[in-house]
Amino acid sequence: MVAEPPLVTALCGDAEISAHFSGDAEVAMILRFEAELARAQVAFGLVPQASADRIASVAETLRPDPAELGRAMARDGVSVPHLVQELRRAVGEPHAAFVHLGATSQDAIDTGLMLRLRAVLDLLVVRLERLMEEMGRLVREQGSRTLMAQTRMQAALPFTLADKLATWQRPLEKHAARLSSLRAGLPVQLGGPIGTGESFGDQYEDIRRALALRLGLGDAPSWQSDRTEILDIAQALALLAGTTAKIGQDFALMAQTGINAVRLAGGGGSSAMAHKENPVGAEVLVAIGRFNAGLLGLLGQSMIHENERSGAAWTLEWMLLPQMAETTGRAIAVAEGLVSHAEFKALRGAFDYAACPK
Amino acid sequence: MVAEPPLVTALCGDAEISAHFSGDAEVAMILRFEAELARAQVAFGLVPQASADRIASVAETLRPDPAELGRAMARDGVSVPHLVQELRRAVGEPHAAFVHLGATSQDAIDTGLMLRLRAVLDLLVVRLERLMEEMGRLVREQGSRTLMAQTRMQAALPFTLADKLATWQRPLEKHAARLSSLRAGLPVQLGGPIGTGESFGDQYEDIRRALALRLGLGDAPSWQSDRTEILDIAQALALLAGTTAKIGQDFALMAQTGINAVRLAGGGGSSAMAHKENPVGAEVLVAIGRFNAGLLGLLGQSMIHENERSGAAWTLEWMLLPQMAETTGRAIAVAEGLVSHAEFKALRGAFDYAACPK
Amino acid sequence: MVAEPPLVTALCGDAEISAHFSGDAEVAMILRFEAELARAQVAFGLVPQASADRIASVAETLRPDPAELGRAMARDGVSVPHLVQELRRAVGEPHAAFVHLGATSQDAIDTGLMLRLRAVLDLLVVRLERLMEEMGRLVREQGSRTLMAQTRMQAALPFTLADKLATWQRPLEKHAARLSSLRAGLPVQLGGPIGTGESFGDQYEDIRRALALRLGLGDAPSWQSDRTEILDIAQALALLAGTTAKIGQDFALMAQTGINAVRLAGGGGSSAMAHKENPVGAEVLVAIGRFNAGLLGLLGQSMIHENERSGAAWTLEWMLLPQMAETTGRAIAVAEGLVSHAEFKALRGAFDYAACPK
Amino acid sequence: MVAEPPLVTALCGDAEISAHFSGDAEVAMILRFEAELARAQVAFGLVPQASADRIASVAETLRPDPAELGRAMARDGVSVPHLVQELRRAVGEPHAAFVHLGATSQDAIDTGLMLRLRAVLDLLVVRLERLMEEMGRLVREQGSRTLMAQTRMQAALPFTLADKLATWQRPLEKHAARLSSLRAGLPVQLGGPIGTGESFGDQYEDIRRALALRLGLGDAPSWQSDRTEILDIAQALALLAGTTAKIGQDFALMAQTGINAVRLAGGGGSSAMAHKENPVGAEVLVAIGRFNAGLLGLLGQSMIHENERSGAAWTLEWMLLPQMAETTGRAIAVAEGLVSHAEFKALRGAFDYAACPK
Repeated sequence: MVAEPPLVTALCGDAEISAHFSGDAEVAMILRFEAELARAQVAFGLVPQASADRIASVAETLRPDPAELGRAMARDGVSVPHLVQELRRAVGEPHAAFVHLGATSQDAIDTGLMLRLRAVLDLLVVRLERLMEEMGRLVREQGSRTLMAQTRMQAALPFTLADKLATWQRPLEKHAARLSSLRAGLPVQLGGPIGTGESFGDQYEDIRRALALRLGLGDAPSWQSDRTEILDIAQALALLAGTTAKIGQDFALMAQTGINAVRLAGGGGSSAMAHKENPVGAEVLVAIGRFNAGLLGLLGQSMIHENERSGAAWTLEWMLLPQMAETTGRAIAVAEGLVSHAEFKALRGAFDYAACPK
Repeated sequence: MVAEPPLVTALCGDAEISAHFSGDAEVAMILRFEAELARAQVAFGLVPQASADRIASVAETLRPDPAELGRAMARDGVSVPHLVQELRRAVGEPHAAFVHLGATSQDAIDTGLMLRLRAVLDLLVVRLERLMEEMGRLVREQGSRTLMAQTRMQAALPFTLADKLATWQRPLEKHAARLSSLRAGLPVQLGGPIGTGESFGDQYEDIRRALALRLGLGDAPSWQSDRTEILDIAQALALLAGTTAKIGQDFALMAQTGINAVRLAGGGGSSAMAHKENPVGAEVLVAIGRFNAGLLGLLGQSMIHENERSGAAWTLEWMLLPQMAETTGRAIAVAEGLVSHAEFKALRGAFDYAACPK
Repeated sequence: MVAEPPLVTALCGDAEISAHFSGDAEVAMILRFEAELARAQVAFGLVPQASADRIASVAETLRPDPAELGRAMARDGVSVPHLVQELRRAVGEPHAAFVHLGATSQDAIDTGLMLRLRAVLDLLVVRLERLMEEMGRLVREQGSRTLMAQTRMQAALPFTLADKLATWQRPLEKHAARLSSLRAGLPVQLGGPIGTGESFGDQYEDIRRALALRLGLGDAPSWQSDRTEILDIAQALALLAGTTAKIGQDFALMAQTGINAVRLAGGGGSSAMAHKENPVGAEVLVAIGRFNAGLLGLLGQSMIHENERSGAAWTLEWMLLPQMAETTGRAIAVAEGLVSHAEFKALRGAFDYAACPK
Repeated sequence: MVAEPPLVTALCGDAEISAHFSGDAEVAMILRFEAELARAQVAFGLVPQASADRIASVAETLRPDPAELGRAMARDGVSVPHLVQELRRAVGEPHAAFVHLGATSQDAIDTGLMLRLRAVLDLLVVRLERLMEEMGRLVREQGSRTLMAQTRMQAALPFTLADKLATWQRPLEKHAARLSSLRAGLPVQLGGPIGTGESFGDQYEDIRRALALRLGLGDAPSWQSDRTEILDIAQALALLAGTTAKIGQDFALMAQTGINAVRLAGGGGSSAMAHKENPVGAEVLVAIGRFNAGLLGLLGQSMIHENERSGAAWTLEWMLLPQMAETTGRAIAVAEGLVSHAEFKALRGAFDYAACPK
């Protein structure tokens, strides 16, 4: 929430992903919505071609004053009224009347969010592929080493590192498929002031479909007060963060002095004990996993929109989803770092049941 | 958690669904797992037909002493060691050795859970269909009445009740499809002590597939430490409860004195004010929706299993999932009651923008 | 929420505490409120002595039909309208008019809740004292043994068991003081239909004070829509459960094969691996701690009462607080069991920094 | 978490408070800890006066390179090892050995956090006083107007605005007292590597007391793995945010078209409906209240430190507490804005019970 990042950002933040949740990115995607909306309406005779061209060309370069935008946001609770006003002023007459035609703030914001989430999901998928490649490499290189499986925090039976890694790979593969599937189905939002599309006239559904096509999004009936898609994206993030947290927990447990099943390269330094190497990455994964699980539960509170649209539910959603995406993105990168530098130590000798603590 | 139900159970509980989470139901489904596991292993030459028959027949009627079972649960953290011991004793020699062969507690518990969730999902689907039928009826009978759409808790523009109901029906339809899809894919759990299936020998995957088939579940690699499916079921419950909470919130808002857009039949009595009719059902829906959202976020904490299996994560899951299912089931029934008795009042006269409060 | 307890109740439930949240207990304390309210009003000339006597005597023995009560609860969202009606019928004329005089449902419910919480806090304090005595005994008997302190899941430096136990004792002492302080300040609730006390006439504050005195509660202005006290009690429970969870986590970590710093007596059996002793109690503590933390966060959602009183917020509170109390009570008992049977193993030999894993 | 703030920051963020959670502020307070620690040790003969002077003077002006600090943070999971190294380098020989003497990272971080929280609590107290003054003014100016009390979202009985405001003022007064009490008791943290203070020698407790005195903090035994104080501060924030959310909810409900009990000055504009004035501030309060409740529940997860200190629990705490403080600070300011501009409309005519909707 702060302009100057606290130190924990260096640990759990992700500049590449957070860029998509910056004010600039939000404005850019809202303007892109306005540009394509105007263009989509040309074929239906609602917007003259010249006005659509003018709107699209201005939208591409408009850079509203951040301070003024902030004040408008605080006043209106949304950025769109101010942005639309600025865009109208910048396109001038006779085009101004065709800006944001038939649309409402939430159309611009939710569609813009989907465009940004698409970019974020793309990033996550690429990172996840890299993580899974590193796991594949680890299986090939060290997979036959014998580890002690641990159930309920007690030694159970020996198995191979490949067996263990399979329990990490399987959920990650499912999560990768889920991300791709979500990415493919991100829906456009277009419904007008009360979500019925009436403000677009009889051709509402065709306009909506045309807009979706132009933006590369899926077509869907207005979902202003139905946040299922948002919750599903958040669930995907929380599952991913939960799985990397489980991996982090395993690393931290295996790296314990006395267990020593794995050596983590680059463990963190201690200010008091030079002999220590702290499992920093592993700890960060656990923190991010718990963080995302909790935020998912909180995001669920934002499902309960009052009537056709809730400013409170909306604001709560905005406070949560970016943080989930940013930290989950970081988690995948941290997990990749852990996996790519881990050196597992094979158990020596056969497992002796009799030696098990009783 | 209590033997004698607190009064809030009469408000938010659901006996039909909670029956599937009772100790009896849990034991019955664990014993069903043991019966079908023995039978599935016959074809692979691991269990003699006579032993499988004996195990299955005893499993059907075994009723372990609840007090003893409770003590075993408190001691072992799981019911299975005691149940297996009881089952072995009851089948007698030479069959006892073939009880629970190759399996571990979590196999029996998780597979048993899936069998119970199947019955619960079936109940939810039926109720959801009834709710949707009632909504369809409401659309047919009162759908053309004019209501005032409300955005951000302010009058926006008039629309029809059918328009409003569509915003409730769309997410419910998606949730119904999701429940059916989850129900169709509920996975068997079979992996043995550390999830590798090694205890079942070379034919592990075939045995697992055979067991799945016998139980009518989907086949899947061992998912002991990967709770994705559980989280997805919980997400479905939370989405459903969230949507009915949104519906409840809308009812409560529309029934407000001064708004009077709907008359709720059977509003609750007040001990102090005879003129009041409290929107009890609507309030219960909101409470259940918030409850489930929060519990989903807490359930996410149970994703972080330590190594191959975590007793702590497991216990947390058991504390949460039944409550989610039970209250969500109740929510659907309460929503149906609200919808089937609601009488909407059409706005009189045309909407006058000029009359809007400024 | 269910009549027949699921097996997890044997693990995390607590019959002694849950008894105070049963329907019977709730009814009994509401009737006690009604009895003392009538008596308190005698001195102010609002209720005749004979009527107060009659009400109090009937209230002591009235046992409303549970099934009917359940139906009333589902209809009214609260039990009080039905209970008041039953009480009025049972006391007969001319006393009926003096039952519940000036009061509203929430007065009866919240005051009744405070009476039950007092009994629960008493139980928790006694258990906590026992736990702390056991810790004191452990310090005396084994406190000088050398353990390895672990920071960030790595061996740090050796210290004594007494040093370690001090980190458990300090927060527990604070929590014990907090419970006692909360117990001493539990407030009466009396405000009438809208919380202003107007229904009690000019002597409202005196009546309230007299009622508080009779019930042994603290006097306080009406707090119907201000749940600070409830949240503070919940916070005390969550802190206590969090501390016992931390203790449980420590036990589970110290009991790990390979660490072996502690031997837990009575570890749970495994259905698959006879050599295992699972740290069941320790796991239960972790589960209960996470559960209570999450429920506290959810309870916070119930602070947001709509206007003078919210049925939805109220219901949510009822769904959460009993579970927190019950499981926290169990946690103290489980922690006591762990502490009283733990056998710590002293580190052998001097700590060798050079031998620390690098 | 991001360098460039998202738009929601303009709505829910608070630059004045977030400044205390910036990297700069964190570093400054850690260096202040190091300076005062050196000075405190002079009297005990552990640090030469000249070295303490040198350390304190350098600490005041040291400005470590942010990029390098970020890399160190990501590597070590804490900033202190790098900061201590920089400080040692900057003070030069023979003083370097007296930097951070006996201390561990968590001592510096937690004590530094308390210094920053003190400043934050001071800000909150001042704002809360202003809010309460505005409420007092509102009572004086409009308090006698008649409003309709609403229970369970239904008209109950008429009362005055002063009656209603009292239900807001009472919890706020309690919260103000709580903030002041917490502020007065903020504890120093000094315990050395494993929290026993052994690294400070026999005079550990005296040194700790001296350090606390120098910093104006309370003295307390090491609380590295006991986060009770942190949770209590978070609880205070969540209660405050919860109360302002309740106030916001009330405003939004009273401002509804059709209820019209209050006119909110400066309602937010709509991009689609010029006649609307959205209750932006009220919505923001609700969002912030739900946000803080959820974050409190998540923060509770960070109580469960593994053994003497947990990097994961610590990181999770850092991800949550600043957000709670920042948004709660904003909430007080927003509430003050709402209260100072609200114009309540008195009910006209006597309340007619017979006219109540049945």
